[in-house]
Amino acid sequence: MRFVPAWLRQYQTGWLGGDLAAGLIVTVMLIPQSLAYALLAGLPPEMGLYASILPMVAYAVFGSSMTLAVGPVAVASLMTASALQPLAAAGSPEYQALAVLLAGLSGVMLLGFGVLRLGFLAHFLSHPVISGFITGSALLIAVGQLKHLLGVKVSGENVLATLHGLWLALPQTNPAALALGGGSVLFLYGARKYLARLLGRVGVPAKAADMAAKLAPMLAVIASTAVVAGGRLDLSHGVSVVGHVPQGLPHLGVPDLSLGAVGSLLLPALLISLVGFVESVSVAQSLALKRQQRIQPNRELLGLGSANLASALSGGFPVTGGFARSVVNFAAGAHTPLAGVFSAVMMAGVIAALTGWFHYLPHAVLAATIVVAVTSLIDLDTLREAWHYDKADAVSLLATAAGVVALGVEAGILIGVALSLGTLVWRSSHPHIAVIGRVPHTEHFRNVDRHRVETTPGLVAVRVDESLYFANASVLQDRVEALVNADPDTRHLLLVCSAVNQIDTTALGVLSELERGLAQRGIGLLLAEVKGPVMDRLRDTDLGQRLHDRVFLSTHDAFTFAQQAATPAA
Amino acid sequence: MRFVPAWLRQYQTGWLGGDLAAGLIVTVMLIPQSLAYALLAGLPPEMGLYASILPMVAYAVFGSSMTLAVGPVAVASLMTASALQPLAAAGSPEYQALAVLLAGLSGVMLLGFGVLRLGFLAHFLSHPVISGFITGSALLIAVGQLKHLLGVKVSGENVLATLHGLWLALPQTNPAALALGGGSVLFLYGARKYLARLLGRVGVPAKAADMAAKLAPMLAVIASTAVVAGGRLDLSHGVSVVGHVPQGLPHLGVPDLSLGAVGSLLLPALLISLVGFVESVSVAQSLALKRQQRIQPNRELLGLGSANLASALSGGFPVTGGFARSVVNFAAGAHTPLAGVFSAVMMAGVIAALTGWFHYLPHAVLAATIVVAVTSLIDLDTLREAWHYDKADAVSLLATAAGVVALGVEAGILIGVALSLGTLVWRSSHPHIAVIGRVPHTEHFRNVDRHRVETTPGLVAVRVDESLYFANASVLQDRVEALVNADPDTRHLLLVCSAVNQIDTTALGVLSELERGLAQRGIGLLLAEVKGPVMDRLRDTDLGQRLHDRVFLSTHDAFTFAQQAATPAA
Repeated sequence: MRFVPAWLRQYQTGWLGGDLAAGLIVTVMLIPQSLAYALLAGLPPEMGLYASILPMVAYAVFGSSMTLAVGPVAVASLMTASALQPLAAAGSPEYQALAVLLAGLSGVMLLGFGVLRLGFLAHFLSHPVISGFITGSALLIAVGQLKHLLGVKVSGENVLATLHGLWLALPQTNPAALALGGGSVLFLYGARKYLARLLGRVGVPAKAADMAAKLAPMLAVIASTAVVAGGRLDLSHGVSVVGHVPQGLPHLGVPDLSLGAVGSLLLPALLISLVGFVESVSVAQSLALKRQQRIQPNRELLGLGSANLASALSGGFPVTGGFARSVVNFAAGAHTPLAGVFSAVMMAGVIAALTGWFHYLPHAVLAATIVVAVTSLIDLDTLREAWHYDKADAVSLLATAAGVVALGVEAGILIGVALSLGTLVWRSSHPHIAVIGRVPHTEHFRNVDRHRVETTPGLVAVRVDESLYFANASVLQDRVEALVNADPDTRHLLLVCSAVNQIDTTALGVLSELERGLAQRGIGLLLAEVKGPVMDRLRDTDLGQRLHDRVFLSTHDAFTFAQQAATPAA
Repeated sequence: MRFVPAWLRQYQTGWLGGDLAAGLIVTVMLIPQSLAYALLAGLPPEMGLYASILPMVAYAVFGSSMTLAVGPVAVASLMTASALQPLAAAGSPEYQALAVLLAGLSGVMLLGFGVLRLGFLAHFLSHPVISGFITGSALLIAVGQLKHLLGVKVSGENVLATLHGLWLALPQTNPAALALGGGSVLFLYGARKYLARLLGRVGVPAKAADMAAKLAPMLAVIASTAVVAGGRLDLSHGVSVVGHVPQGLPHLGVPDLSLGAVGSLLLPALLISLVGFVESVSVAQSLALKRQQRIQPNRELLGLGSANLASALSGGFPVTGGFARSVVNFAAGAHTPLAGVFSAVMMAGVIAALTGWFHYLPHAVLAATIVVAVTSLIDLDTLREAWHYDKADAVSLLATAAGVVALGVEAGILIGVALSLGTLVWRSSHPHIAVIGRVPHTEHFRNVDRHRVETTPGLVAVRVDESLYFANASVLQDRVEALVNADPDTRHLLLVCSAVNQIDTTALGVLSELERGLAQRGIGLLLAEVKGPVMDRLRDTDLGQRLHDRVFLSTHDAFTFAQQAATPAA
């Protein structure tokens, strides 16, 4: 019973129609996508089909989202290609075996993270870094597909070399391929922009019209396959086609661990896992919220991990939750992962019987579906928002995107993570330090530069807006000494610790030194609003002992103390 | 006039006696140390002498400490050896040229940091990391000198290999070398522990007795040199001696940049610069404080940078401010860097005329002075304190020390920095989140778990003790949702932002999502004590617009609002 998921135990027959319809429509989207993303990953088309069967079943059993559609996706396919290209020739048997191994490693990692409850690791990929990564990947993917649209052979080490190669190969453009590919691009863009509206205008209900627009890629595939097959354009015009796709269900088997490449696949597998997890959770969460459902991040790890393991065991490559298919799945009325199981069954039917139909499918049209799909991933909104809100985040986003395009997916994401962590450290090492005074007639204290507040003679009250640690303790020390030097009448220096969440050993040393230095000059150090966890530690130190009667619960209390101390002297 | 330092313009003749005495006593300490640290760095003895002349003059002109004694020191010498050993055979002409180049690079870096005011970079070396680094280096140095004490030839890739080599070579121990070296170690330890006390007891004033104890290494050098020279123990007993030291002042010249090793020396030069800077500043600062003086970190960078450049131009190796010599300089009455200039002149005299005297100085005795000097650098106090105060800092310290001993100085310090930054990130990604209530009869609010406070029905008030950013925003979200779910009567969720110093783009997105989710359930999000810089950014965002009338100056105001909102409903 443990492996019978909750949704199945509580299944209501009324859901069946929605799940079946959603399963069907997702299958129709999935067929061209699975072939296209296998092409993008440098793998034979059947591997895309294999990756679209068992993973969905595994996710249905272990995942927590009711509507996430798992399978091959563009970014993970690009990451697969970039991980494997240094290790083997694209499409070679070794390359294929490595792709299977990569899916297996990613599956094991995701399962491990799930079991160890390490889902929080994904939080270290900030939204701007993810956005920059996706945008950069989309550009990289789109440029990589241009050769298929032109029907030329080009390979490049990087984007510039690829573009240069395309430029040189321009005279060899295959007009038939360009017509098919370019035509498909125009048709797909047009369908996305106008088809739903057009169908609506002729009386088709809005929801059905939206669905129909999503089926445009399948239409392009069918039409172009018919044209190529009818005119034998592969022979007469040299149009590159998918060719023979082996018929029959995938064989189950354990990935080949003897390749000795496990070490060099660990980092790519980790990045594929984390990026895939972040993307899946964000899609799943936004869909779940619309129905007041919840997804459980650690269950998602198990779901995605088992999906990847299932992909590896059935000869597929890394999979994750796809954005577009999940949205369609949701909109088409999927209530439970049974929709995914239906898709899997239909895909199995396709591969068992219908692979012959793909023979004349032109690569140019698959490339067109990829280009149109990925351009919708380019995310300028987040860039615009980040630029307005926080330039450092915008820089991280741009650097990640530029890193992906110029140096590759792994370098790009590592640059992004390094920059976002660097920003964090940099900011905390340059803390905001405010001199504060009392908001009149209250017990509230704010920055003297921003608010009309009252100060107390002889008291310098400073609020430091950061935890105190090795990289910023001396900044505080310097600032305090400058403040005290500026006011020779200072008798008390109050440090308001409302924003101090930690004081490390280095900062403790600096504070002790500060206290001693101030004491030599007859100035008493006072603390206020020291948080419980900070005070727990401070209490037993020398500094804590010396300060024990000068730590005040509230800034108000400290001000009152300083005022009373000043009064007899006045 | 600009290059005539302030201390010289204001020089008072009354200071001359103290400066001269301090210069003399430092010279007497410096002679054996400069020879010993050249040995430690794998360099010929004259390079130690060269590094003890011009650098002191350069520091006198550009530095800001009145009493820092600049020259060869143990840790920088070890770092020099460890940087150069992979690049050339110790002692070879190329090795010497690389040492000169390393001093030059370090000088240029320090000057660059000073001009660009990048002194704060040194703050990224926390006290525990520095302490662990020094302790690990001291152990490494001491182990490395054992071969000289035993009079055997041993080389090892790492500490274990060296110890194993020593074990194997034990039967070849040179009894004369061991007697000289072991005797010196005992004498030096004894002198440090008892000589001052003994001299005090026979009537010598305490200060003079302390000074005399510092001269013990020179005594050991003179006595052992006399013994070896008298008995020609180098010939009769195979005692390894310093041998010929070229007489005459160093030639000035630009370091050889054609070695093509600049790239591999950049990281070592950076680490030597930073470690040397941190150590120098901490010694200089503690001495300056005793006389109510100030040192200026950026001026120190210029002082140390010009000292290293001077060392490079005069055939020396990396130098920095030495702890022991600076303390003696201070105690002997140095008022100004003129004491250092006097030392430099005396060292110049020694090298111009007296190098012949060092011929019979046994290596074993130099090793003894090194071993005794570095064991005083082993710092268990900081470890003990850190262990009590902050286990993570203690772990950083131990890992740095272990890294230095096991993997070398560079790896050790990089491990330490990575761990201390990692701790920072880890902690901020797991923020302390407190539910708060009002301290009765005040406008002060504290943790309900730690203080007896009053809460308001319908209001959940949460204080998050960390800036909100990508790695911790979801933690807050999860916690808030759990709190709201636990109390179905919640009408307001107050987020007290007194400890929130930043909200990055990712966290802004999470907060927006949280606000929308709460609003759907009829719960209003309130903010209080948003800091000026945070509010400046928040104001123009969608979230800021939606919340504009629900951001309260103080927690008190927010509680009052929630109470009033609850009253009519009650």
